[in-house]
Amino acid sequence: MEFLDDDYLLTTDLSQELFHSCAQNLPVVDYHCHLHPKEIFEDTNFSNIVEAWLTDGKNYGDHYKWRLMRANGVPEELITGSADPWEKFQAFASTMEKAVGSPVFLWTHMELRRYFGISSVLSTRTARDIFDQTNEMLKKPDFSRRSLLRRMGVDTVCTTDDPVEDLQYHELFAKQDETFSMIPAFRPDPALKPEQPGFGAWIEQLEQASGIEVHSFDDLVSALSNRIDYFHAHGCRLSDHAAGIMTYDVATGPQLNAILDKARAGKPITALEYSQYRTALLIALMGMYNAKGWTMQLHLHSFLNLNKRGFADHGPDTGFDAMNDRSIAEPLAALLNAASEQGGIPKLLIYSLNPNDYMVISTVAGCFQGGMKQRLALGNAWWFNDTHNGIRRQLEVMAETSLLGNFVGMTTDSRSFLSFPRHEFFRRILCEMLGEWASNGQIPADPEFLEPIVRDISFNNAKELFIDNKND
Amino acid sequence: MEFLDDDYLLTTDLSQELFHSCAQNLPVVDYHCHLHPKEIFEDTNFSNIVEAWLTDGKNYGDHYKWRLMRANGVPEELITGSADPWEKFQAFASTMEKAVGSPVFLWTHMELRRYFGISSVLSTRTARDIFDQTNEMLKKPDFSRRSLLRRMGVDTVCTTDDPVEDLQYHELFAKQDETFSMIPAFRPDPALKPEQPGFGAWIEQLEQASGIEVHSFDDLVSALSNRIDYFHAHGCRLSDHAAGIMTYDVATGPQLNAILDKARAGKPITALEYSQYRTALLIALMGMYNAKGWTMQLHLHSFLNLNKRGFADHGPDTGFDAMNDRSIAEPLAALLNAASEQGGIPKLLIYSLNPNDYMVISTVAGCFQGGMKQRLALGNAWWFNDTHNGIRRQLEVMAETSLLGNFVGMTTDSRSFLSFPRHEFFRRILCEMLGEWASNGQIPADPEFLEPIVRDISFNNAKELFIDNKND
Amino acid sequence: MEFLDDDYLLTTDLSQELFHSCAQNLPVVDYHCHLHPKEIFEDTNFSNIVEAWLTDGKNYGDHYKWRLMRANGVPEELITGSADPWEKFQAFASTMEKAVGSPVFLWTHMELRRYFGISSVLSTRTARDIFDQTNEMLKKPDFSRRSLLRRMGVDTVCTTDDPVEDLQYHELFAKQDETFSMIPAFRPDPALKPEQPGFGAWIEQLEQASGIEVHSFDDLVSALSNRIDYFHAHGCRLSDHAAGIMTYDVATGPQLNAILDKARAGKPITALEYSQYRTALLIALMGMYNAKGWTMQLHLHSFLNLNKRGFADHGPDTGFDAMNDRSIAEPLAALLNAASEQGGIPKLLIYSLNPNDYMVISTVAGCFQGGMKQRLALGNAWWFNDTHNGIRRQLEVMAETSLLGNFVGMTTDSRSFLSFPRHEFFRRILCEMLGEWASNGQIPADPEFLEPIVRDISFNNAKELFIDNKND
Repeated sequence: MEFLDDDYLLTTDLSQELFHSCAQNLPVVDYHCHLHPKEIFEDTNFSNIVEAWLTDGKNYGDHYKWRLMRANGVPEELITGSADPWEKFQAFASTMEKAVGSPVFLWTHMELRRYFGISSVLSTRTARDIFDQTNEMLKKPDFSRRSLLRRMGVDTVCTTDDPVEDLQYHELFAKQDETFSMIPAFRPDPALKPEQPGFGAWIEQLEQASGIEVHSFDDLVSALSNRIDYFHAHGCRLSDHAAGIMTYDVATGPQLNAILDKARAGKPITALEYSQYRTALLIALMGMYNAKGWTMQLHLHSFLNLNKRGFADHGPDTGFDAMNDRSIAEPLAALLNAASEQGGIPKLLIYSLNPNDYMVISTVAGCFQGGMKQRLALGNAWWFNDTHNGIRRQLEVMAETSLLGNFVGMTTDSRSFLSFPRHEFFRRILCEMLGEWASNGQIPADPEFLEPIVRDISFNNAKELFIDNKND
Repeated sequence: MEFLDDDYLLTTDLSQELFHSCAQNLPVVDYHCHLHPKEIFEDTNFSNIVEAWLTDGKNYGDHYKWRLMRANGVPEELITGSADPWEKFQAFASTMEKAVGSPVFLWTHMELRRYFGISSVLSTRTARDIFDQTNEMLKKPDFSRRSLLRRMGVDTVCTTDDPVEDLQYHELFAKQDETFSMIPAFRPDPALKPEQPGFGAWIEQLEQASGIEVHSFDDLVSALSNRIDYFHAHGCRLSDHAAGIMTYDVATGPQLNAILDKARAGKPITALEYSQYRTALLIALMGMYNAKGWTMQLHLHSFLNLNKRGFADHGPDTGFDAMNDRSIAEPLAALLNAASEQGGIPKLLIYSLNPNDYMVISTVAGCFQGGMKQRLALGNAWWFNDTHNGIRRQLEVMAETSLLGNFVGMTTDSRSFLSFPRHEFFRRILCEMLGEWASNGQIPADPEFLEPIVRDISFNNAKELFIDNKND
Repeated sequence: MEFLDDDYLLTTDLSQELFHSCAQNLPVVDYHCHLHPKEIFEDTNFSNIVEAWLTDGKNYGDHYKWRLMRANGVPEELITGSADPWEKFQAFASTMEKAVGSPVFLWTHMELRRYFGISSVLSTRTARDIFDQTNEMLKKPDFSRRSLLRRMGVDTVCTTDDPVEDLQYHELFAKQDETFSMIPAFRPDPALKPEQPGFGAWIEQLEQASGIEVHSFDDLVSALSNRIDYFHAHGCRLSDHAAGIMTYDVATGPQLNAILDKARAGKPITALEYSQYRTALLIALMGMYNAKGWTMQLHLHSFLNLNKRGFADHGPDTGFDAMNDRSIAEPLAALLNAASEQGGIPKLLIYSLNPNDYMVISTVAGCFQGGMKQRLALGNAWWFNDTHNGIRRQLEVMAETSLLGNFVGMTTDSRSFLSFPRHEFFRRILCEMLGEWASNGQIPADPEFLEPIVRDISFNNAKELFIDNKND
């Protein structure tokens, strides 16, 4: 088969039929990404392929690519430094020569084909031509940021927003005549990081945004509740939490108030206090999301900024993150129990960056189902797992331990406007898997039976949760 | 290939040959299941398919299916409640429409074909016909409980029995002229749960059953030894332990006596005391099993009843269990060392519900081999792992880290009289794997070489351990 | 396909092309093995196949095979005891009948074919013929130890040496006219085991070898630095560490001195002291390796000598080892951070015996890349993972989370002179994987693009690190 052929990954006739007649042309609901609302609103073009792919020096940097370039010994000057775009592109092209089997290699070439119509393989030999051609095209109107989304069939994109945001770009965008929607998602991570230097200042921002003075833990919950209402009025039906490790510890109200006071004053808090505070706040948030009919996302076992020098030099999201490997079954069960006894468990997607956790998460989650269709589910393969193996494994675990047909499908979780072919990648793997199962007799080889499942996972389930739900 | 075709999962010619000429027609030794001896003895028919498949309201409930129905948002009334059978069946059928890739989906359709000859796919559309047809058939003599076992080629079934049981149904059954055997298995879990409310009462039952008064930890061991003798005289050659997490802590005799006294009095014991008590009792039991030539089963990393509300409402084995994910290498090695230095390690099958543990268990077990054929082995894929992936992975780990040819094969571990096609599923996967290995040249593509291995794993090894051994 | 056919494992046309036209005939750099320099220098023949394969009663014993024989219930007399070679060989042959799917089964037959030209399957039926034929051949000149290496295309072999060694056999060998090189590797494990009885005596040996008196922790580092210089002058560019579990704890200089004093005096040290000492020494060693341009190997999660009785009876490396399963992400990150802030991280290969760790290791390592090509990498599949699944999985993780093209390739890590077909096994799996990726369109099906990658992984990358580098 040709590289990235029309039928790539579609190893059976049925896989091909399911993909081409059904999955391929469904719209995209990218319900979790890190695109900037301002950029989507302003809809400018990229200056060149380096700005679009590697770094624009401000908002955007593709740390997936940076990690590979560093692994190849490329000097930092050519990665995040002030070298000129062509030098950076060359260094990236040379890295790609070693990257066969990497998702970055695959995505790079899918993006060259789907956006630019370029089918050559990126290498030091082809780099100049590709650099010139893509730069030329990026100036054209159908390469503006929104055009890039439109051309990949985007129906809806959910951004990731701080609770203190006024969502002005969402408001401005909503007034425009555009073929797709942009919806905010609520990410109160700053509220859940009392150990960080900026915590006190952030609480002040929250007070201003909500108009509620925070004198106690309960006030904090009220202020967040106020912001949830504000986001809800802007169409938000989704929150997200970068939870890292899973812990569970209980505290009294006065203890929580004392921890909050210490943290606001910038005093150090203990690991236990951190866990107590976070446990209580997560449970409170779960209750509020549940009351609103929102979906909550819990991202576990990302191990962030672990290279201290790298983090000091470059800040967060610059390629110094890995996966963690602690036990999670017991604290996760404890959290779900407590939430269930207090404000309830909302619709909940639990992700882990460590694929060893997939079966544990899905079976623990499976103990708290009920009251709605697929209240809890294993989140999609993510970050280091956005690979053929990773996506396939997540789908298999979802199928083996819960109901695959209820799966809400893929997200890019990306900062890049060019990352949307990952939805195609995901859909191919879904159709590959179903076709292979059918080909050895494990499931019916019946398109009438399988197409509704493909449609639900690729589009309908997400639409139901995040779009139809907007009018509630 | 057709769904559940004659050759389903048999991806090579050699796989087909091994299965059809060798594995398919071998008798079944189901050496670990949860069928009730009384029901097997009484041999009544099921009233309807819901009683057979979903719940009979008393003894039997298929929590695999309940979990999926809850995941699909089916109201509890239609799962464990008092809704009528047709409503429950509809809710189950509707859940199956989402369950492609689930083992429950596969088993459901294998059971429809193998027991009822129905080859349609269960859905809301076909539910009424299937409900009516199966209910009609279930009234017939060849659908009595024993007939269901006979029709699947059962040679021997090992039940799971409390040490205090008098085994009256085993005695009654043994007097009957039946084509298959029923053997008890010894499951002293109540003795290993000193933290549970019923512990004191259970010890009293044990005193009565054994005629030995329990004043000390040694008395407890004597009383259990008495029951082991009793079970042995009834043909039992197998014990089972739901060990959950693995811990290892040593205590003195007086400490053990004190823990036992506290536990009998219903006083709380610490986590350390629990571990000390359990460590000592497991080692004592291992020595006794070893002396009798029994096989011991140790089931690790089940995480039971973790949804407190679900457990309070429905009791154990109702769908509120998951897998755990602690470290096990060090405590497991410590336990095996201690047993080896005391009464010895019996023939031992170590299972884990968490497949991440397979290689750890098999390599730790491999350090204590010797003195008999395959003294220790990784137990078969179990519960959440009774899937194509799970069974295949367990076979691969057994082959890579020990001697596949000595593997004792599949168990249903099931409460359902209709679960026996799982042996066929297992044998297909075994033949699939051997055929695939041969097809790429990793092993000889020689039926004469491979058929004895298939026969041993499918039948002979279990027969040798649990049946031939009965006359010792 | 025939068993071990010319195209075995080469499932696609492209796999076959890559292997036969490119990988197959490349020389072998076995940069990590446990062959004895003295034996390589002396170049004698084996007395018989049992001495070569199972045990020579002194230096060599193949614990992979011993474990399987013990698992089959073979009496120890026939494994490590004084039974005659033919009896031992029979017991091994009988064990192989159960071992289908084991790497030992595969290697045994590859070795029979590649070294002896024997293509029958080893069993009790064929054992006598194979025993007689191999014994006859082993007497011939082209079966001397060096001939065995030469015939497998060995270019370089790196032995594993204690820092106190004088490397006399390396010196003697270097003067000879041989087609391959033998290079020492530095393995200071005795320095990192302050809890072991022989520690004090070993430090004295180190003092003698280095001419440096060890009165403090800094003296110890100086003495090791002296030996690193000595090894460097003998062509060594590689160290190795059997690190077991990963821990990280910091101590002051005086604390380190106190721990060293206690350990030298044979007094017990605590687990914390052990961790503090080891942390500081590993960081110091990393700085020295980095300064020399050496590659460091860190072997994690081997769980050694865990059967106490087996270890007491037989000593280390006799089949009583397993894999461990603790968390490693956080202590590994802490160690790398500390090294990075002190003497730097050398070129570093991090292995784990537990394949669950592969993605964790590779993503943590990926946070510390830079300054050279592939400073850190996941080490190759090792020991219990030298299987089709294990090698394939390691390659996939390397490809998905770093740069496959920079991978330094296979090692035997073996004590056996007959183990070199494992390089062929590895190369077949590499070509199988690339061919399969290409066959479903994930990578270009272009030999011109893929052959350089195959050549780099099979030979060039190792040559660059361990051979070209020798003249620095």
